[in-house]
This record gives sequence, C-alpha cells and structure tokens, in this order.
Amino acid sequence: MFQQVTIVGLGLIGGSLGMAIRRHHLARRVIGLSRKASTLREAARRGAIDEGTTNPRQAVGAADVVVIATPVEAVVPIAQRLAPFMPARSILTDVASTKGGIVRALERSMPSQVSFIGGHPLAGSEQSGIRASRAELFEASLCLLTATARTDRRALRVVRRLWAPLVRRVVVMDPQRHDRLVASVSHLPHLLAFCLVGATPPRAVAIAPRSFLEATRVARSDPALWSEIFFSNSSALVTAGEQFDRRWRLLRDQLVHGDRAALGRFLRRAQAIRHALPD
Amino acid sequence: MFQQVTIVGLGLIGGSLGMAIRRHHLARRVIGLSRKASTLREAARRGAIDEGTTNPRQAVGAADVVVIATPVEAVVPIAQRLAPFMPARSILTDVASTKGGIVRALERSMPSQVSFIGGHPLAGSEQSGIRASRAELFEASLCLLTATARTDRRALRVVRRLWAPLVRRVVVMDPQRHDRLVASVSHLPHLLAFCLVGATPPRAVAIAPRSFLEATRVARSDPALWSEIFFSNSSALVTAGEQFDRRWRLLRDQLVHGDRAALGRFLRRAQAIRHALPD
Repeated sequence: MFQQVTIVGLGLIGGSLGMAIRRHHLARRVIGLSRKASTLREAARRGAIDEGTTNPRQAVGAADVVVIATPVEAVVPIAQRLAPFMPARSILTDVASTKGGIVRALERSMPSQVSFIGGHPLAGSEQSGIRASRAELFEASLCLLTATARTDRRALRVVRRLWAPLVRRVVVMDPQRHDRLVASVSHLPHLLAFCLVGATPPRAVAIAPRSFLEATRVARSDPALWSEIFFSNSSALVTAGEQFDRRWRLLRDQLVHGDRAALGRFLRRAQAIRHALPD
Repeated sequence: MFQQVTIVGLGLIGGSLGMAIRRHHLARRVIGLSRKASTLREAARRGAIDEGTTNPRQAVGAADVVVIATPVEAVVPIAQRLAPFMPARSILTDVASTKGGIVRALERSMPSQVSFIGGHPLAGSEQSGIRASRAELFEASLCLLTATARTDRRALRVVRRLWAPLVRRVVVMDPQRHDRLVASVSHLPHLLAFCLVGATPPRAVAIAPRSFLEATRVARSDPALWSEIFFSNSSALVTAGEQFDRRWRLLRDQLVHGDRAALGRFLRRAQAIRHALPD
C-alpha cells in the first residue's frame, strides 16, 4: 500500500485515477495539485482526492508517487519544477499519450532522489474535465509503461503495482515502440475522424447515419488537447499516415479499375481482423 | 392501410421492415419471398412476416407494395422478374444503398401497371440476417426516397406513407444527389474503416483502445455486401475519397511543417461540426 499518491492535474484522467485509487484502497491518502481551487473542491466533492492544494511543495513533499496528469506539453516543465521538492526514493510518472520526448527529457534530468517512469493508460473519452471522471474509466483498458536502459527497475515495479489493480493489463515497452504503436492505433484514428468530419460536405453531414456518427465520435474530443498530442508525436503519426495512405491508394485503384477480387480479399481480411476484436 | 406488403429478401433490413410494419399495423398482411424455406420459417417465427413463400408469382400477385430488400446487385434482375406478376396500380420499391443505376434501369423498364420508387432507409448494423432483425431498427433513421422527372407522384406518396411511421424522417431527392451524399457519409466512412483496420500493423491492433474500436466498428460488416455497395457507387465514392484526400494532404503538411495554428483551426471546426450531431 502507498502512503501518499499525489495527482497533478485533475481532468478526466487525473480525476478518474484518484477515484480508482481510493476505491481500491491503494493509498492512505490521495493528494491533488491544481492551479484552480475550484477544481480541487470539485475533485474532493467527487471523491477523486482526499485533500487538494495549489502549493506544489506541499503537494509532493511527502509523496511516494507523483502522477502528472496534465496535457502532454506541460509534463516536462511541471516534472522539472516538482522533482526537487520530492522525498528520497520517490517516483514521478505521467499519463501522457506520447512518450519518446518526455522519457528522454526526464530520465536524464531527475534529481538523484527521484525516478521517472513513463506511463500511458489507454483510456479516455471524448469528454474531459473532472466532471467526466469515473472510477471505472480504466477497467477495460491497457496501461502502457516505458522502460529504457536508464530506467530504475524498482520504480518500474512500483508503478506497475499502482496500475495493475485498476486496468485490464499493464504492458511495458520502450518509448519509441510505444509512440509507433499508439500513433497507429490511437493518434491516426483520431486524426482521420477529425479529417472525415471536416471533409464531408455540410449537406451530407445533415443526413449522417449511425455508421458516420460512430466512425467520427472521437472527433468530439477536445481539439486543443489533440492538437498537442498530434504534434508531440508527429513523426510517428506521419509514418502511420503513410502506411494508411499506401493501402488507401491501392483500394482506390481497385475501385477505379473494377478489381473486385482484390478489393473483396482485402475487405474479408480486414473484417476478420476487426471481428476478432471486441465490439 | 395497405392490404398486402410483400418483402423480397428477409435479411436484416427486410426482416426488420416486416417487424416494423406489423408492429405499426400498416398492412393487413406482410408476405415474405425468399429462396430459402428455412429463412421464411425463421422470419415467421420472429414476427417479421405473416406468411412466406418461395413462389414469386404467389408472393407478389396481390401486393399493393413490393419491397426488394436484397443486396444491391440483385435488385434490378429481381424487380424485372417480379413486375410482370404484380397487379394494376401496384408499386415496387427497394432499400439498396445506391440509387442511380437502379432507378435509371427500373423507371424505364416497368410494365405499365407497376410504378417503381427508389428507397433507402439509412439504417443498418454490422450484423446481418433475419436473426439480427428488430422492429426498432429504423426509428432513429432517415429514409431517403428518390424522385426524377419520370417518377409517378402517386406512388411516391404511397411509399412515403409506408415509411413515415417507421423512421425519424423521410427525405426525397434525385438519385444522383442521393448517391453523392451517401458516398460521403456512409460508403466512404465504411471504406476508411476497412482500410484503417487492414493498414494497422498487427502489433498495434493488439493494443487497440476504445477509440480504434469505435472508429472501426463498421469494418465488422459483411465484406461481400459492402464490396457490392462500393462498386455500385464507385464513381461517387471515388469523388468523395478525393475530397477526403485533399483535406488529408493539408493536415499531413500542417503536421510535417509544424503549422499549429492551421491544424488547430481545422480541429476546432471539425469538433464543432461533430459536436452538433448526436453522440
């Protein structure tokens, strides 16, 4: 059991993590750090934290684990600001969608008493903010943690122990592999959904059937958050986009040239892959 | 009220239409026509039809309205086969996803006692077959009907009266416009979903989060059915694909060149459009 987990940033992910930790009795206390006192009050009211503070030193001075749950671009500067206040053998981790840059920056710059572990629960919602938080958010999800040659193995075990009861499975991989996989399976689908909505003529949008609504539901997500995510992983995202494009050009050629056999084979294969995944 | 509605093809759409007509007491009897006696038995057992037959003449000889609910490529040959058996002032309609070719072929070739009206309820599911049918399938959906200079206005009013109680709204448009809009908002999203699944590396598929599952749920749909649909509307689909591509290339350039302002503007606009649609 943890003595104190501090959560920095009480949006959808930070708030839900606090609720889940408290529901599973994983920590004696969950402390919230936010710039807004109103967010802290709301988080306490919803049972996401035991106590909140706007004072960084006070928030992390006695923490076993500090989880930074802010938008991706704030992770490195906030980590560097908080680490000096953290106690001996404490652990800093995060939940950001892109890991390469963050892990590279933070595994090198932590003070000696703090170990950094990159983390990324593959959970979310097109909603955001503490009001959308719920203790069950992570239950069906994977949590990805990163390991490099520099990673403190004890700290990795501790962060795994924090997430394991809250998610379906914890998977450890190196940050570059993380960024490649997540570009394919999360960042690209989000960008395609935004693109499809924006490229569809308004008169067609007006008759949107369920298939369109489902395929584009993630385009309801916070555009500022996702713009940051796309740019934080732009190189892997562009590569994933090129993989998609190669296939897309083939399909269009098959359509134009009436190659029913090839298109049919591709659809059957894709359908079988998708059918093997959850509904 | 209709004396007899005959439904040809008792899959998801035909079966659900029979159930909905019977639940709303729109016809004295609903007759099913299928090549398979086992499908007719299952349809009767589920309340999708009052009686079934494998005999075309018997099925349509006393019908006010015959609805062809087969896959798209079978509509024209089946319509041409059934029309000679149909009574005076009777109406033939269909539910196929593409309308241009079907309406062109059938408005010209019907015998004088039969009027053809193109129809397309914008409802469906990644499931198919009579076992997936349900009376509520159409409730939240639009039903698109086609009208051209040749269209019999009385027949159009009658088919509208059949669908109106079963759907959210009936919308009439010309077949070319139908095919353009539906290419953008249904056929393209389906093709993109199949493409995304097939282009994603297996190792990435293995960690697929909810966003990927949602964006690709329609790729669980029957590949043979969708191959037919794509080819039946390939020219409008290729045009919709080009609209998508232009936007997609812009987004990739903005990513590569770090144009945060332009990408951010696009995401905000797309999010606002999607946000105005149902969840």
